[in-house]
Amino acid sequence: MSSLAESLYAEIEKIQAIDIHSHVRPLKPSAAGLRELLGYHYYTELAFSCGLEKDQMAVSLSDEAMVTALVARMADFDNTVQYGWIVELARKLFDFKDRRLTEANWRPLAAAAAKCLAGTDWSAEVLRRANIEKVFLTNTFTEDLDGFDRHVLVPCLRCDDLVFHTARPATLDGLAQRTGVTVGNVATLKQAIRGVFSYFSGRGARCAAISLTPEFVCLPVKPAEAEPLLTAALQGEPLSAEETAQLRSFVFYLIADGCREFALPMQLMIGAVRGAYDHGVANGTDLVANTASLGQYADLFNRFHDVTFTVSYLSPTMAHELLTYTWIFRNVYASGHWWYTNIPGYIEADLRCRIEALPRTKLLGYYSDAYYIEFTLPKFNMYRRCLARVLAEQVEMKRLTEAEALAVAAALLRDNPKRIFNV
Amino acid sequence: MSSLAESLYAEIEKIQAIDIHSHVRPLKPSAAGLRELLGYHYYTELAFSCGLEKDQMAVSLSDEAMVTALVARMADFDNTVQYGWIVELARKLFDFKDRRLTEANWRPLAAAAAKCLAGTDWSAEVLRRANIEKVFLTNTFTEDLDGFDRHVLVPCLRCDDLVFHTARPATLDGLAQRTGVTVGNVATLKQAIRGVFSYFSGRGARCAAISLTPEFVCLPVKPAEAEPLLTAALQGEPLSAEETAQLRSFVFYLIADGCREFALPMQLMIGAVRGAYDHGVANGTDLVANTASLGQYADLFNRFHDVTFTVSYLSPTMAHELLTYTWIFRNVYASGHWWYTNIPGYIEADLRCRIEALPRTKLLGYYSDAYYIEFTLPKFNMYRRCLARVLAEQVEMKRLTEAEALAVAAALLRDNPKRIFNV
Amino acid sequence: MSSLAESLYAEIEKIQAIDIHSHVRPLKPSAAGLRELLGYHYYTELAFSCGLEKDQMAVSLSDEAMVTALVARMADFDNTVQYGWIVELARKLFDFKDRRLTEANWRPLAAAAAKCLAGTDWSAEVLRRANIEKVFLTNTFTEDLDGFDRHVLVPCLRCDDLVFHTARPATLDGLAQRTGVTVGNVATLKQAIRGVFSYFSGRGARCAAISLTPEFVCLPVKPAEAEPLLTAALQGEPLSAEETAQLRSFVFYLIADGCREFALPMQLMIGAVRGAYDHGVANGTDLVANTASLGQYADLFNRFHDVTFTVSYLSPTMAHELLTYTWIFRNVYASGHWWYTNIPGYIEADLRCRIEALPRTKLLGYYSDAYYIEFTLPKFNMYRRCLARVLAEQVEMKRLTEAEALAVAAALLRDNPKRIFNV
Repeated sequence: MSSLAESLYAEIEKIQAIDIHSHVRPLKPSAAGLRELLGYHYYTELAFSCGLEKDQMAVSLSDEAMVTALVARMADFDNTVQYGWIVELARKLFDFKDRRLTEANWRPLAAAAAKCLAGTDWSAEVLRRANIEKVFLTNTFTEDLDGFDRHVLVPCLRCDDLVFHTARPATLDGLAQRTGVTVGNVATLKQAIRGVFSYFSGRGARCAAISLTPEFVCLPVKPAEAEPLLTAALQGEPLSAEETAQLRSFVFYLIADGCREFALPMQLMIGAVRGAYDHGVANGTDLVANTASLGQYADLFNRFHDVTFTVSYLSPTMAHELLTYTWIFRNVYASGHWWYTNIPGYIEADLRCRIEALPRTKLLGYYSDAYYIEFTLPKFNMYRRCLARVLAEQVEMKRLTEAEALAVAAALLRDNPKRIFNV
Repeated sequence: MSSLAESLYAEIEKIQAIDIHSHVRPLKPSAAGLRELLGYHYYTELAFSCGLEKDQMAVSLSDEAMVTALVARMADFDNTVQYGWIVELARKLFDFKDRRLTEANWRPLAAAAAKCLAGTDWSAEVLRRANIEKVFLTNTFTEDLDGFDRHVLVPCLRCDDLVFHTARPATLDGLAQRTGVTVGNVATLKQAIRGVFSYFSGRGARCAAISLTPEFVCLPVKPAEAEPLLTAALQGEPLSAEETAQLRSFVFYLIADGCREFALPMQLMIGAVRGAYDHGVANGTDLVANTASLGQYADLFNRFHDVTFTVSYLSPTMAHELLTYTWIFRNVYASGHWWYTNIPGYIEADLRCRIEALPRTKLLGYYSDAYYIEFTLPKFNMYRRCLARVLAEQVEMKRLTEAEALAVAAALLRDNPKRIFNV
Repeated sequence: MSSLAESLYAEIEKIQAIDIHSHVRPLKPSAAGLRELLGYHYYTELAFSCGLEKDQMAVSLSDEAMVTALVARMADFDNTVQYGWIVELARKLFDFKDRRLTEANWRPLAAAAAKCLAGTDWSAEVLRRANIEKVFLTNTFTEDLDGFDRHVLVPCLRCDDLVFHTARPATLDGLAQRTGVTVGNVATLKQAIRGVFSYFSGRGARCAAISLTPEFVCLPVKPAEAEPLLTAALQGEPLSAEETAQLRSFVFYLIADGCREFALPMQLMIGAVRGAYDHGVANGTDLVANTASLGQYADLFNRFHDVTFTVSYLSPTMAHELLTYTWIFRNVYASGHWWYTNIPGYIEADLRCRIEALPRTKLLGYYSDAYYIEFTLPKFNMYRRCLARVLAEQVEMKRLTEAEALAVAAALLRDNPKRIFNV
């Protein structure tokens, strides 16, 4: 980085961030050990892609066997930022001194990690070193939201099952347990969903979130149109593709109703193709498609113009659409850099355009999407470096002063998340 | 900017540019005052997006009330290039000394602006400071092209109403008034359109222009096929979506016939979704879609291979297509950086590729799209900075000498517009 | 370039590359003279695009007339990298001293070129100066693979005619001649295709290759479904668009079967629209479309998960899809920068993302796609400069050391091609 970028980075590091999307487990935020950290799907899927066989990463293997095989294969992708995450994590959290994992150094690292991870208040220490104040969770509607500090680990209602598997027994049972409502028709479905929102809202949830496939289209569906579809689905009768889409859209709009009533923003993650690879490792079978358009959501954004939508895309072919929607729609906010676009080359190109074209108050800078809280540190630091580089360029062009650049950084990392999600 | 980019910028500033697309009013090119300048839809839509209510920007409000509210809210987007335009405009034209508009400084600025804007020959002074020789207009077919210097403000026939609202009473009345022809069938429609071209060509028009939606597809339609569609439309009978598309395509090809006969280039602006936001401010409801392809125009470009098409896109997903079409089609020229792509992050990425891959004679660098002539200055300067940075990179890579780089700049800003539009 | 990029370039130049895709003629790899070099479609199509008439480049013209006209017009695109190729080629191979071709200097250059091109072992000398060890060919299935050093010019089976023109007399005659099999049904078609693979595999072919249009979709088609389609096609009966697509997909999967049986990777070049421009010069009528998606190949990649696919796209709207497919699919490799994307502005943006996100073992850096072996030199050097700049940025960000960066370069240019294609 240029010396300007480095000096901006030093200041940006001091901004305590809010992580608005993760998969951290509320009762056990940390990994159990090095093996779990290395078991993050980024590593297993890249190792598999490079030729490591699944049975060499099998759950049944000893740590010794699995980690040895994995570390050896990881050398094939030690050029990647994903590899960089584990190294930075190890250095900043476990006092690792090397640049690369090797056959020779992983055992002492594992020992150091085990010691730290077992420590009292370790998760809090991680957030201190990562300089992150709060981490949003992703809670299924059946999850109990007790037993943890909801001011630090902020609940968020994940809605995928409600929308995509409404009539599955597991969903219906979950709804009955959570809300006491047995879903048998549209009226009781509405009641149950309202009950879920009520529970979440009462326990500090600050948003709803959903991941949507590239072909999902928002359509207004009248209750009278949905009624026979729901009835059929509850009776296990098959629906046509069009009917399925209608029912899903209907339930999706019920979720939006809930967001409206309980004044919760909805996080939309758009564009993952689920289960596209038949032979992949666990969590390593999803892909992206360049075919989705935000036009598919125009009805939603218009109809629920008083609901806040924070939007992430998975395909850069939607980057400019999201920029213009954030520009024009008062209730749409550009959010972070998700999954397959969480790479500096994509982040910096898009971030520059966002900062040049959009009000800084409309931008949610970043979220970790982490499963273990340890990964919030290297991911946020990677983003902070991107932000420092992009802002340094703006300062060099004399578009922003250094102070103005840091105000932008504070908005993206902290001020906007706090205001938009009311935390 | 690097010192090389700065020294190139100093030279590029000296190239007198031709602005080939604007919405400047021929008889009143300038704004009336600061309030009109701040009323540019970029500011009202971004302020609305940030939360300013429409009634705080209402026409009925006093300047004092409206500008105070707007300036306060504009602080939310003082990171943007759009904000940068008004500041550069104020500094270069009205001797403003600050970097930001504030409650404290906007009144003196308004006073200074009012004085300048009321001055004799002010528009000419603006062009002198902007170093722009000519500014193309966008004239509806009903507009009189008299009363202004057509060598400075160059007429251009805007064709949207002819193509998209052919059978509306306002269009038919306008055609009758302009040409004396009452449209009743295909033959008289042809005659009327020819009459419009004749009028415009006789009064110094140098091109036709049209904005096309993402779903527009060029299709050859025979007069005999169009006849019943036109008859139905003239009688107010509803057409199917397909019939509407056919009729529009037929009329569009009549426009292309006119361009051919009168040897006028056609400016195509491709990809705006009109009225997509139900709740936006005036002129702040249009959006972009990533779904359009230049393949939709291949028939046009082939069929009218002797007509020059200068093409702009609204979605960067068309950037590479336009590059290849400009490369292969002799009659296609890449033109400027339109509206939602008129942002340095998009401009520089695309401009670099154009300069690396395309003959410099096939490139129209920029146009302002301005409503008030004052905005030509900061917009062109923003582009000149992008051009300086992109060319500096080429010089640093030793692909171009500084002299060659400046020759490219002259081609894009001045030589090509003059040759292509014959001005 | 920065001094770091220059020092990396100096090292990258020393890596002997493998060129995995070209159209070099095995028995006559070199051009006959300057005219043939300038006759490369890049120059004739750009000159035509700039206004040079076809009859000024006609085959029937003398060199004097044709080259004089072409060189004069090429001044219109001396800003391009394509122009840069001929200059670097002339300087590095023919001791040309200037930066530009002119009326004054082209005749001495032609004389110097003629002398070199007629020299003994000239092609080997070209590869020495280009520092390229092997150049892959593109051989039609009817081509004899004898009479040249197959360790330097590596055969590759081009499959387009087999898939897209299966039932044409020329294809059937060619198959009969190559394999002795008269195709009359699915069984004999399979036999014939197997025969082709057997011939190629036995003579050192290291892959199959095919160029696919944007609308091509891979579908599994059962032999019993294909049988009547093939019968109809062989009898000259017209097939519907859907039937044609089915038959092509069926034959395409037979090619994949061949790759599996003979353990040959398949090079997929996705996205060229053939013959899209009615008025272009020879080889200058093809275009790109932004409408294709790698989703159209998901079935292929899943079904043939034991076949290696090296994939290139023609539209940057597929760049991120290819990145994610290479990431997740073990058998998919991102390959080079093809044709209309073979421009530094596109290469560097994509290459940065690939290096940041993908295992270096999954990346095939570059191929020349050259028709005359002389063009391998400037094209590879252009890529090496891109690689040096992209890697320098990674080193400056402290993501890679210089040694690690050079290891990435070696993987992309040499190690991966050797391993993946087993040469």
